[in-house]
Amino acid sequence: MLDMGIIRQVNSGMYSLLPLGLRVLQKLEALVDSEMTKAGAQKMLLPILTSATLWNRSGRLKTIGSELFTVEDRHKKLYVLNPTYEEAICELLAGIIPITSKDLPLKLYQISRKWRDEMKPRLGLLRGREFVMKDLYTFDTNLENAQNTYNKICESYDSLFKQIGVDYVKVIGAAGIIGGSLSHEYHYLSDIGEDTVLLCQSCGYSVNSEVLNLSSCLKCNNNLSSHSAIEVGHTFLLDTKYSKPLNATFLDGPKPKPLVMGCFGLGLTRIIAAVVEILSTNEVLRWPNNLAPFNVCILTPKKGSKEEIAAPYAEQIFGILNELNVDTIIDDRIHLTIGRRMFDANRTGYPFIIVIGKTASNQNPMFEIHDVKNSTRIDTNIEGIINYFNNQDINREIKQNEAVV
Amino acid sequence: MLDMGIIRQVNSGMYSLLPLGLRVLQKLEALVDSEMTKAGAQKMLLPILTSATLWNRSGRLKTIGSELFTVEDRHKKLYVLNPTYEEAICELLAGIIPITSKDLPLKLYQISRKWRDEMKPRLGLLRGREFVMKDLYTFDTNLENAQNTYNKICESYDSLFKQIGVDYVKVIGAAGIIGGSLSHEYHYLSDIGEDTVLLCQSCGYSVNSEVLNLSSCLKCNNNLSSHSAIEVGHTFLLDTKYSKPLNATFLDGPKPKPLVMGCFGLGLTRIIAAVVEILSTNEVLRWPNNLAPFNVCILTPKKGSKEEIAAPYAEQIFGILNELNVDTIIDDRIHLTIGRRMFDANRTGYPFIIVIGKTASNQNPMFEIHDVKNSTRIDTNIEGIINYFNNQDINREIKQNEAVV
Repeated sequence: MLDMGIIRQVNSGMYSLLPLGLRVLQKLEALVDSEMTKAGAQKMLLPILTSATLWNRSGRLKTIGSELFTVEDRHKKLYVLNPTYEEAICELLAGIIPITSKDLPLKLYQISRKWRDEMKPRLGLLRGREFVMKDLYTFDTNLENAQNTYNKICESYDSLFKQIGVDYVKVIGAAGIIGGSLSHEYHYLSDIGEDTVLLCQSCGYSVNSEVLNLSSCLKCNNNLSSHSAIEVGHTFLLDTKYSKPLNATFLDGPKPKPLVMGCFGLGLTRIIAAVVEILSTNEVLRWPNNLAPFNVCILTPKKGSKEEIAAPYAEQIFGILNELNVDTIIDDRIHLTIGRRMFDANRTGYPFIIVIGKTASNQNPMFEIHDVKNSTRIDTNIEGIINYFNNQDINREIKQNEAVV
Repeated sequence: MLDMGIIRQVNSGMYSLLPLGLRVLQKLEALVDSEMTKAGAQKMLLPILTSATLWNRSGRLKTIGSELFTVEDRHKKLYVLNPTYEEAICELLAGIIPITSKDLPLKLYQISRKWRDEMKPRLGLLRGREFVMKDLYTFDTNLENAQNTYNKICESYDSLFKQIGVDYVKVIGAAGIIGGSLSHEYHYLSDIGEDTVLLCQSCGYSVNSEVLNLSSCLKCNNNLSSHSAIEVGHTFLLDTKYSKPLNATFLDGPKPKPLVMGCFGLGLTRIIAAVVEILSTNEVLRWPNNLAPFNVCILTPKKGSKEEIAAPYAEQIFGILNELNVDTIIDDRIHLTIGRRMFDANRTGYPFIIVIGKTASNQNPMFEIHDVKNSTRIDTNIEGIINYFNNQDINREIKQNEAVV
């Protein structure tokens, strides 16, 4: 294997996801898909280019024009490289006639790349110009039902963030360029964050400082603490803000009514960048176990070393761990020392490293298991490896749930 | 469930993949991923926008300029919405230093959307302006090794097309805008195809008529037959055509040498459109079994019907089929008649339909299994359903293989 790294900047604010980086994204996508399926949402894919005419109709071509990448085709028709898809999804539903109240709630989402022509892209994937986002749009008959749907999706978000396992906060959000009547944000607290959130340690009230700039809690009057934070999710109850101008309606009686809408974003590449920033140290890259590109990296003996004879154990251990559904990779760059590959493994962020080292060629072969997070090492035989990973609360291979529509 | 269909045109040559359509794409992607992993290729993701500077360096900004969608950012820097990624992948490898002969062959692929500003988009997904493509790039030390890699990838393509199960032909290809020293194309024969391929029934020689316009076989002099065909895959042995101008080199001694390159495209949305076109009739949409959005659709009794009491069998049968890894959906639009939903199911292309009909409320409940492809129907009980799907050569849920790098 060629150690290419995780991501690589290509242009200002634009990154390649290298094979290990893409694996992280795919694991996060599988977690998101699973939660969305449980919430009754259906996955789809909208074209990346949307006619600027629609953005004109919603009024956003003007209001956020300078942040939009646009493309003109050979017939001089203008398209927007979408940062978000409210216009496009409304236009789609406007063309599906008739939608009736029996079809609602309807929940449609996609995971795809989005664009925003930031003035100053910075902090790597945290504020890129091209990024991967999950965007879900929900449609209901009235505001009360839409609020119920909204609450359920917030529960899905909570479940997702708990599975990722990095502490997060949910705060009252700023409606920003999306608008609507109610909004929440999901944040990771971090010194490098560009948002500021205010938290009440007493009653749990929490708000983005852009919404209200308070020093004491609105609810219980206790002190609020202020924290830098990275916004990774944002939910909006939009009401009919987009469905009205874009004619996305349903039938419930003779006259079409505008659909009542919610939208729910998750910045997937931003989540990836944020959790790595929060969990890592200067020496060791660290992923949440269920997002690590692989959970175990096996280091084979260096070519020409005394223990080279033990090399076949790599495949044996690999096979065993696969049987246990432990996501494993072999670093077979046998022209490099174990030390050098250990350095690379720490830089990649595998939670566990198994070294086939000197004692592997003993009569009773022993292997090193390194738990990177806890900086522990144990030496054990094959049976010990089986027991160790049978007992670990590590990531099992994520099976994508089948969607039940 | 709301029956939204499979795909929907949004703009000329641009389509939304609706939930059922996206499932088809995901199944095809899983087949492709599995073949690529077996071939030792690693999946990654390059930014969709590539600097026009690179396209200038390869000379293609001029040669295919009018078919490129381009974007200017707020700093007036020009980007290309890539139709293909030879420039981008070479630039990436040029930045990874040093690549040595020990790292080769290197095989990197992505599955992503690509763009081509066609003068006249037509035939739906067959010739769209936005499409989903798998593009693989391989890198070797010399032409002989690159030719070996090329042959292996062609074997992967053969294996993939056999799994899809629709007859295809592999012909000598036209190098076109990609160039290089050797090229093959994979085609489905179809009257609506825009290519013409010449086939020798005697010795198997086959060629795109753009390459050579022959009436008799070059190899055995027998007659060639001429067929309209849809190109769905294209492979190129590129040699150093792109690696040289873009400085993608490796070390094998003191002096860097240009990597010897191959590239291998597969039009995923085009495959989907082509197989449906070939397999379907006027009345019934038909998918290859391993690409159907679901393999079985269960129709529940209509609301208010005598057999409504048998509705709970739907969940029971659904559970059983899931246990058998048969990909199943329930059409629970109980306000519609069975006949209407049967019509929709045939239009969607489920290979099997199970109806919970009149005899389902008998003391010994019986259900209808419709095999759409063979236009057969049998009536059987739950045990009969289990036996039926245990014996069918239908698609099992596709498990994505873990990549071993």
